[in-house]
Amino acid sequence: MIKLDGNYLSKKLLNELKNNLVDKHLTFVCILVGNDPASKTYINNKKKKCVDIGIHFILLEFPDNISNNILINKIDEINEDDNINGCIIQLPLPNHINSELILNRLNSNKDVDCFTDENIGKLLNNESKFYPATPYGITLLLDNYNILTKGKNITIIGKSRIVGTPLALLLSNENKYAGTVTLCDKNTINLKDHIEEADILIVCAGVHHLIDKKYKVKETSTLIDVGIHRIPDSTKKNGYRLEGDIDFNYFENKCSYITPVPGGVGPMTVYALLLNISKTIC
Amino acid sequence: MIKLDGNYLSKKLLNELKNNLVDKHLTFVCILVGNDPASKTYINNKKKKCVDIGIHFILLEFPDNISNNILINKIDEINEDDNINGCIIQLPLPNHINSELILNRLNSNKDVDCFTDENIGKLLNNESKFYPATPYGITLLLDNYNILTKGKNITIIGKSRIVGTPLALLLSNENKYAGTVTLCDKNTINLKDHIEEADILIVCAGVHHLIDKKYKVKETSTLIDVGIHRIPDSTKKNGYRLEGDIDFNYFENKCSYITPVPGGVGPMTVYALLLNISKTIC
Repeated sequence: MIKLDGNYLSKKLLNELKNNLVDKHLTFVCILVGNDPASKTYINNKKKKCVDIGIHFILLEFPDNISNNILINKIDEINEDDNINGCIIQLPLPNHINSELILNRLNSNKDVDCFTDENIGKLLNNESKFYPATPYGITLLLDNYNILTKGKNITIIGKSRIVGTPLALLLSNENKYAGTVTLCDKNTINLKDHIEEADILIVCAGVHHLIDKKYKVKETSTLIDVGIHRIPDSTKKNGYRLEGDIDFNYFENKCSYITPVPGGVGPMTVYALLLNISKTIC
Repeated sequence: MIKLDGNYLSKKLLNELKNNLVDKHLTFVCILVGNDPASKTYINNKKKKCVDIGIHFILLEFPDNISNNILINKIDEINEDDNINGCIIQLPLPNHINSELILNRLNSNKDVDCFTDENIGKLLNNESKFYPATPYGITLLLDNYNILTKGKNITIIGKSRIVGTPLALLLSNENKYAGTVTLCDKNTINLKDHIEEADILIVCAGVHHLIDKKYKVKETSTLIDVGIHRIPDSTKKNGYRLEGDIDFNYFENKCSYITPVPGGVGPMTVYALLLNISKTIC
């Protein structure tokens, strides 16, 4: 079994990207509405990596009760500001905010999260410059470990609009990965079969250890785990450990490749976002 | 076995639509570049159905050597003309025309083929008003025959951007059809397995009788054939007969539901386009 080491790979790739960005003076804006602690953690992580490779990072924070109009005006300013290369609007937004309207207000050329309808459409048509960060990170992980996808059975469990569904489009695309993708959800009647037949199994269901000893996988399979869950653990200094949607300990010697949690998909996602930002000057 | 009678169903639905459109004064523009005979046949068919149900049909014909700029200006005029409700640009366009640019120039609110990046993106996000005509026609056929999709294995063979791929998005969507969709292409290694396991098999590969006696299907399966091929036949007055991607004669008694060719998906596609046009006033 080979562990797909997202920590190591992302560091290596970030270093290469840093060298490519010398003197490029990129500026990236992150919009945060409210005080969600998880969002703040994600943003701090992005900020740190941006600073590491020389991308100027600007955090714009707004109170929870901001109006749609003020947010729209702010995005319009960002769209018109030639000094800003890329922008993301951290999700989730408060309930009174029209997320579709806000996300689609951003100029698609600055939409480094690849969330606008236009950029998602380009994804299907294979003319996209940006890709949603988690799917993109996963494809880069497969690329760098030379894991073949063409014609292979790829089972994806989880249909979110930012991970499972765009990932299915990316890996299915006949001009690039050309995988035979099956997209499963909680309604899937014969999930067991789709898991057992998978050459590549990607789990992004957000359910702790959804894939456990109930299931068998091919010995030659690649297992990719997008889930991340805090499991209370009194033996740890911070009181918890991180685990994924796949029972890593059970499967690590039953497949050919597997991502650890943490240190698998997570760091590749951050790298993928930064790679998108770098493409704003292409 | 029940034949999925697209001729009968589309006539019934068109009649209902006609009644809904009385006094609505809809105008639909079709842009044709060049002299492709197949395109002319398709357009005449659309025209006839529009006239039948009271939609004003305008055909704008342009020579093969038209420039991108003239075409763009014409589309801009259409976008600004409040009297035009919907418009399609008949594909294929000549090689010197930038199809992506032209298709995306059309205002998404008039894009009744659902070809702009924005409308395709809305499809993934489940906020679409229009749907690509062939996928939409297929879902309406399934709806009207009460064929359940939730959790079922749906195997689609063929990944085109106007049929297979958007159909996968539609049938996969967790909030509506919630099928477990597998999208296959010519690279798929174990096509046989995906065919045998399908509850619903949809073939849009454009290969005559791709699905023949080499393959088995479930007795309870639904077979949907998007293919249409002219097969030379001296016993016919016009010298040919029409057949699909599925060997209908072989499978008609081996499944639960099957579309004939012609008279299955084809007429539903035209109805679906007209339904999209009717939604321009919603």
